[in-house]
Amino acid sequence: MQQPARNNLRALGATIRKERGRLELSQENFGEKCDLHRTYVGQVERGEKNISFTNILRIAAALRKEPSELLRLAGM
Amino acid sequence: MQQPARNNLRALGATIRKERGRLELSQENFGEKCDLHRTYVGQVERGEKNISFTNILRIAAALRKEPSELLRLAGM
Repeated sequence: MQQPARNNLRALGATIRKERGRLELSQENFGEKCDLHRTYVGQVERGEKNISFTNILRIAAALRKEPSELLRLAGM
Repeated sequence: MQQPARNNLRALGATIRKERGRLELSQENFGEKCDLHRTYVGQVERGEKNISFTNILRIAAALRKEPSELLRLAGM
């Protein structure tokens, strides 16, 4: 993967982590809300996974954000 | 895949097709700009592929849109 894409994945992951923190949810509880495994959530938050569109939708819903708003918060 | 996710993929694909049309680009020329194969572009436009985040970024760049704006235009 090229560096700009990796930086964008990291920015998205950092935003997800921050918004999860605002909701005071552990990775485990957040994963349950998204129906995603907590280890996957951890990888996404560290920008290690090229997340799919449908998983972005699940995560945005669990964060109570529009997907476009989540990306905007991540600076994209 | 569940129906809401599929509907969202279709909405995103329809928006990509519409914006590509605005730029008067064929799927082939658009694919070259994104560095994605035209058959993949076609599948994305029909909502048949669960596109990855980094490919959303490539497509948004080729459409000269912010990724958040592309999702907003798709109603998400």
